[in-house]
Amino acid sequence: MSIKEEVITLAKKAKEAAQIMATLSSKVKDEVLKEMARELVEEGSYLVRENEKDLERAKEMGLSKAMVDRLTLTSSRIKDIARGMEEVSALPDPVGRITSMWRRPNGLIVGRMRIPLGVIGIIYESRPNVTADAAALCLKAGNAVILRGGSEAIFSNLAMTEVLRRVARKYDLPDGALQMVSTTDRAAVYELLQLDDYIDLIIPRGGEELIRAVVRESKIPVIKHYKGVCHIFVDENADCDMAVHICMNAKVQRPGVCNAMETLLVHEKIAPLFLPKVARSLEEAGVKLKGCPLTRQIIPSAEEATEEDWYAEYLDLILAIRVVKDINEAIDHITRYGSNHTEAIITQDYRRAQEFLHRVQSSTVLVNASTRFSDGYELGLGAEIGISTTKLHAYGPMGVEELTTTKFIVYGDGQIRT
Amino acid sequence: MSIKEEVITLAKKAKEAAQIMATLSSKVKDEVLKEMARELVEEGSYLVRENEKDLERAKEMGLSKAMVDRLTLTSSRIKDIARGMEEVSALPDPVGRITSMWRRPNGLIVGRMRIPLGVIGIIYESRPNVTADAAALCLKAGNAVILRGGSEAIFSNLAMTEVLRRVARKYDLPDGALQMVSTTDRAAVYELLQLDDYIDLIIPRGGEELIRAVVRESKIPVIKHYKGVCHIFVDENADCDMAVHICMNAKVQRPGVCNAMETLLVHEKIAPLFLPKVARSLEEAGVKLKGCPLTRQIIPSAEEATEEDWYAEYLDLILAIRVVKDINEAIDHITRYGSNHTEAIITQDYRRAQEFLHRVQSSTVLVNASTRFSDGYELGLGAEIGISTTKLHAYGPMGVEELTTTKFIVYGDGQIRT
Repeated sequence: MSIKEEVITLAKKAKEAAQIMATLSSKVKDEVLKEMARELVEEGSYLVRENEKDLERAKEMGLSKAMVDRLTLTSSRIKDIARGMEEVSALPDPVGRITSMWRRPNGLIVGRMRIPLGVIGIIYESRPNVTADAAALCLKAGNAVILRGGSEAIFSNLAMTEVLRRVARKYDLPDGALQMVSTTDRAAVYELLQLDDYIDLIIPRGGEELIRAVVRESKIPVIKHYKGVCHIFVDENADCDMAVHICMNAKVQRPGVCNAMETLLVHEKIAPLFLPKVARSLEEAGVKLKGCPLTRQIIPSAEEATEEDWYAEYLDLILAIRVVKDINEAIDHITRYGSNHTEAIITQDYRRAQEFLHRVQSSTVLVNASTRFSDGYELGLGAEIGISTTKLHAYGPMGVEELTTTKFIVYGDGQIRT
Repeated sequence: MSIKEEVITLAKKAKEAAQIMATLSSKVKDEVLKEMARELVEEGSYLVRENEKDLERAKEMGLSKAMVDRLTLTSSRIKDIARGMEEVSALPDPVGRITSMWRRPNGLIVGRMRIPLGVIGIIYESRPNVTADAAALCLKAGNAVILRGGSEAIFSNLAMTEVLRRVARKYDLPDGALQMVSTTDRAAVYELLQLDDYIDLIIPRGGEELIRAVVRESKIPVIKHYKGVCHIFVDENADCDMAVHICMNAKVQRPGVCNAMETLLVHEKIAPLFLPKVARSLEEAGVKLKGCPLTRQIIPSAEEATEEDWYAEYLDLILAIRVVKDINEAIDHITRYGSNHTEAIITQDYRRAQEFLHRVQSSTVLVNASTRFSDGYELGLGAEIGISTTKLHAYGPMGVEELTTTKFIVYGDGQIRT
């Protein structure tokens, strides 16, 4: 069988399975997920052994320490993955939920009911935990899922999929409910992305390069974000200590993630008071500062920021700082250089807070809180399948509900249209 | 300026305008729409004169009577268009609506707020009323809109856009809020569909050929339906008179539209009683019947239905009929041959009704009502911008709310992530 044929067979099976998955009871889905969690722990030593094959190859290929770390499965990490699956099983089932219902003058009762999207393809890199996390969320929402992990984690991913599929079989789930593309040939991804007759949604998870390649090649709708250039605007009436506290958290707590702050905008009236304080804390934490001319007048240690710095997603202990005249200039900056991911305002001014919330069109907008809260779990969605910075279907962190859509249901008693 | 440059200029202006449109007050938007409605009526004779230029060309080109009819503007049709705009202005404003809000254990208040999609491109054929209808819905939802009508209606569309833009200027709306591509060159459509940096959504309205061409060429997300192969399943416990009544309405009232019935599925137990009755009424109304072998045993006048008939969207007084063993066979038929548009069951059996509603995954599923209700206005959305049979973002008839998305808003008081 050619790669193309193999992928098409997989996709057809998934589409057939989706019909059955859509009407599974919540009880069965939740039991399957709990059993999958148990089996992963049970099979922990097998998973670790398979993972070691990937790790060995990674060392041979000279992968970076950070990459190797992301790739590594330990028994404690497997327990975390299992706990994640149990949490997903405990979430309310979105399928069948009536989101609203109303009566028409002619007596028709019209409602909207949540249904699964159908078949979801997940294309991801290195982290083998995505295999279980993504599968759990897709299954919970009644979808069939096709997984395509990176070649660097192929032994780990195949082993994990094998364990999960064994449980699925035990519960008589259709064979196409959960599948993994077993070949590491890049051509398989291309073939997968052409199958818009079978697959309803593609979610790529990984670096910007992977995501751009998927978007370029896909005939299937893709939900994604390229990058997170997150801003904090410290307004003139900010509580200075709170502002320092939040900025430190947003920049330093985990600089390598998409919801970390990359650019700090400071109202010119508070800059002389606030900037020296925040600079001291940031520099003590090892953050390199880059600033506009006004910033550098106040913080001489800051390097000069160039136009590229305003667009930069450093994912590192580097911060661009700009002093702005007012909220308009702050919002203009965000609109021009931002990535529609996450922005926060720090202010004690009620009207300014509301204005920022309304005018900034990014997918998550916060008042007096760290950008690091832009995350499905932290916002209360129960889990996260990814973050979208395009507005169609889902915008911002996506939970299990975003893996469903709604259909119209209509109860009549003989109505016809006149 | 080349066509490409012209279209890019238009799109850039639209994106800038979208920023301003997103924060317009409901009051201003509603006044603009009402004034637009007034001006269309006021300028009725000008619009009719320009429309006559299109009609003359249409006659020269030998367009069909149906096409010419769709193209024609009369003073009474203009009044209908104006009334439509007034109705849109009276709808509740979706922008800024909080769809839900909750409190996190750490005290963060998290909510979802509706915001406009941004820039919407509408690509349509012949009917000049789409110019005003689509513009009204896009503006109401706070979007900027780029219109691209067919060359056959170019004089009518340009005249109508001119009138609408004059009102927009009077109310200081940004110039890019409402624009029309003025060239009739097909290349302009292609160029428009490449501009995913500026345009958020494309909605094509017209025949299947137009829509397939748009989907093929577009880098921008497209919401569309190709066709409506709508089914009615008459269950064994149906009220026979109600079933005849609904089938007549669904097939005969307006056979040329996408929510008309194309295939009738009949439970074998009710077929001997129901089929002769419905056949008589349908044939009296001039409907040509095609049937499976079992159908033809009961209705000898029916032609033999072929495999292609089950896929057919006749848009005409033709109906395919199939006798099925049970609800499973009916749902299997719908899954295999259907278009995810609209399906109805006629039954007095409570459990059967619920089963059909749950298991059928089409965008509108009805019990004891005509498929003709699958329409934004009839379902209570206030108006309709189109119908989607793909599940992402919107599924089924789309109203003004589907021209928006939601962002997360977060009220904190100094929270950081630990």
